[in-house]
Amino acid sequence: MSVQIPRIIVVGAGFGGLETVRALRRAAAAITVIDRQNHHCFQPLLYQVATAALSPAEIAWPIRHILRTQKNATVLMEDVLDVDPARKILITNFGEMAFDYLVLATGAMHSYFGHDQWAPFAPGLKRIDDGTRIRRQILIAFEKAEIATDSETQRRLLTFVIVGGGATGVEMAGAIAEIARQTLAMDFRRIDPRNARIVLVEAGPRLLPAFPPEQSDYVRNVLSHAGVTVMTDTMVTKCDAGGVELGSQRLPAATIIWAAGVMSSPAAKWLGIEADRAGRAKVNTDLSVPGHPDIFVIGDAAAVIDANGKPVPGIAPAAKQMGHYVGSLIAARIAGRETGKPFRYRHLGDLATIGRRAAVVQLGRFRLRGYLGWWFWGIAHIYFLIGIRNRFIVAFSWLWSYLTFQRGARLITRAHDESL
Amino acid sequence: MSVQIPRIIVVGAGFGGLETVRALRRAAAAITVIDRQNHHCFQPLLYQVATAALSPAEIAWPIRHILRTQKNATVLMEDVLDVDPARKILITNFGEMAFDYLVLATGAMHSYFGHDQWAPFAPGLKRIDDGTRIRRQILIAFEKAEIATDSETQRRLLTFVIVGGGATGVEMAGAIAEIARQTLAMDFRRIDPRNARIVLVEAGPRLLPAFPPEQSDYVRNVLSHAGVTVMTDTMVTKCDAGGVELGSQRLPAATIIWAAGVMSSPAAKWLGIEADRAGRAKVNTDLSVPGHPDIFVIGDAAAVIDANGKPVPGIAPAAKQMGHYVGSLIAARIAGRETGKPFRYRHLGDLATIGRRAAVVQLGRFRLRGYLGWWFWGIAHIYFLIGIRNRFIVAFSWLWSYLTFQRGARLITRAHDESL
Repeated sequence: MSVQIPRIIVVGAGFGGLETVRALRRAAAAITVIDRQNHHCFQPLLYQVATAALSPAEIAWPIRHILRTQKNATVLMEDVLDVDPARKILITNFGEMAFDYLVLATGAMHSYFGHDQWAPFAPGLKRIDDGTRIRRQILIAFEKAEIATDSETQRRLLTFVIVGGGATGVEMAGAIAEIARQTLAMDFRRIDPRNARIVLVEAGPRLLPAFPPEQSDYVRNVLSHAGVTVMTDTMVTKCDAGGVELGSQRLPAATIIWAAGVMSSPAAKWLGIEADRAGRAKVNTDLSVPGHPDIFVIGDAAAVIDANGKPVPGIAPAAKQMGHYVGSLIAARIAGRETGKPFRYRHLGDLATIGRRAAVVQLGRFRLRGYLGWWFWGIAHIYFLIGIRNRFIVAFSWLWSYLTFQRGARLITRAHDESL
Repeated sequence: MSVQIPRIIVVGAGFGGLETVRALRRAAAAITVIDRQNHHCFQPLLYQVATAALSPAEIAWPIRHILRTQKNATVLMEDVLDVDPARKILITNFGEMAFDYLVLATGAMHSYFGHDQWAPFAPGLKRIDDGTRIRRQILIAFEKAEIATDSETQRRLLTFVIVGGGATGVEMAGAIAEIARQTLAMDFRRIDPRNARIVLVEAGPRLLPAFPPEQSDYVRNVLSHAGVTVMTDTMVTKCDAGGVELGSQRLPAATIIWAAGVMSSPAAKWLGIEADRAGRAKVNTDLSVPGHPDIFVIGDAAAVIDANGKPVPGIAPAAKQMGHYVGSLIAARIAGRETGKPFRYRHLGDLATIGRRAAVVQLGRFRLRGYLGWWFWGIAHIYFLIGIRNRFIVAFSWLWSYLTFQRGARLITRAHDESL
């Protein structure tokens, strides 16, 4: 006589999905983790892969390695195609899988606000492959400029436009400025990389809207000092192979990086439930799906008004908290314990770095910036990395870059569909 | 009144090309280095990228960074299409370039001995992109086996065939055995990676023919002990998507790695001169091309009988010696000094590693194997790496892997034309 243990499927092994699985580590359940990648990516440092400071393996770790000691969890690398919530079936490219509980932690993609035709010209930064693709594009621009014979072409190749003044946009702009002004300064003979033009475009009135205005002003000053042209209150009206259009102004640029908008993955569509404008599934205060108490959506895929009555932001700590909440909730239900407290998000703070020795930190009333903020930013990120090995190697890479102004991963590797 | 300084073009920034440029560092010349990659790759450790032990950036370094302080050298990332030796013109994808001296150090590619249709099923290992492609293929095989439902498919997915028993083949076989037996041992739930079958196929009578027979026997024993099936005197007669054919025997295998033959790059074809069977340009004893004293071919692209009357082997130290010889010869000619000594190759020795604590070393009469050989191998390779940063990070990665049995770069990143 065997008792059937509950089958839990977690789709997506980002911050939210992994935290769900961890909270279930002592549950008498058969957990299946499904991801289309074999690795968990530490997205807050992905911009450092895109700017050649870190190697992909330094910020990513195989999901099955992370979970190797959690014996109730099986990891499968598959693509999810659809969900049948009524029959409690998940449909993947390898067939159907039945579940008792389902957690969709499928994250977000870039959004071009209805202009998907811009995507090939303005790549965004979500996955490891995006990081190596953008790294390749930035480095190739300098290589082509060295070969180019007319100054107009060189000017276009050495113009980098970053769209979006949030944390990713600010960090990318600061890092590209550092590459041009310092890392590559001595490496070329025909061009001077220090003449590169780095333009950060933000539609709103100021950079880093999650921070107080003084911090935004500080960041703008630091970036301007580093050679970045900051344009606020400016809308991008077109992206193409030649550059961007900002209303009536045309800016020729070989490299455009999209850090402006995100769009949820299709969790809501799979479930056939209501979504907000960004495509995020509207879920109950316990993060379950209306009408399906055993199906949950968390992280960037969910639109949640938490117990404080406020929308939960789409950032890593929020995804982790939701994962922990849902994992614990399922574990309690399996154990027959009381559940019932709604999800309550606790905002820990905001961090962003702008380059060497400059960052802004906002933890409640606690504020830091400049050199101290930069140290705080670095230590916090090292702390949250998975694995002692990665912590050590990233710390060493940063120390090395700091001392030498060099970047250790300046490799142009071949991309999928591109040729030089 | 300006004096025209001589224009030297070096094509290829591998071991031979870089050494040529370095030997010209004090020459009053305008040197242009052309490579289709932006990085110099330390090929002897490329198998460690293919087996997830090292990241690409740990064994590769931007060419223009290596040469940044050599002010008489300009680096261009271009594809060379042809040479017009009579007009002294090099033709690239960006146009024509005139030269006074030309050094072709374009290296070698894989050779399938006339069976180029095997290439998509049996990738070889020459460039960084080959390394990440093979890494992806090996890791994907385990992922697919975990998903597969019938044992025959699992068996095929967990069979790895390495073709060629030279240093690369032996090193790959040892490393894949280590991945299956140790690194991945605890990470799967439905398959046992330790059941993977690793088959090393060699057409000749023994492994590592450059070493004495006792060393070959030792290597065979170590590999067998590690779980590798060694088949000598065995010819591969077909490679396809399902596996390999060894004469009348068919071996189903999802992963085939080609480490059997090399074919020169088309330097001889560009020049319209005689080549040997492997496509290598037959050059004079001063490495110049017959009839063109200002054009040289070196490294794996050249077939040379040196001053000792022996053919020069296609290995990194030989390429470096040829590069140093030709660079010095051109520098002497520019300075109006006597030149005339033919190239003489000095064989330093052979090294190969088989896995944890096992390697063979042969330096003249000096021989090492086992644990000591393995230390010698490791130190020698760290020594020859470019850059203190890389030496340090590789040493740390090795120490870490040694202590934990883990591999730091187990990432499946998307390849050009493949999808899961």
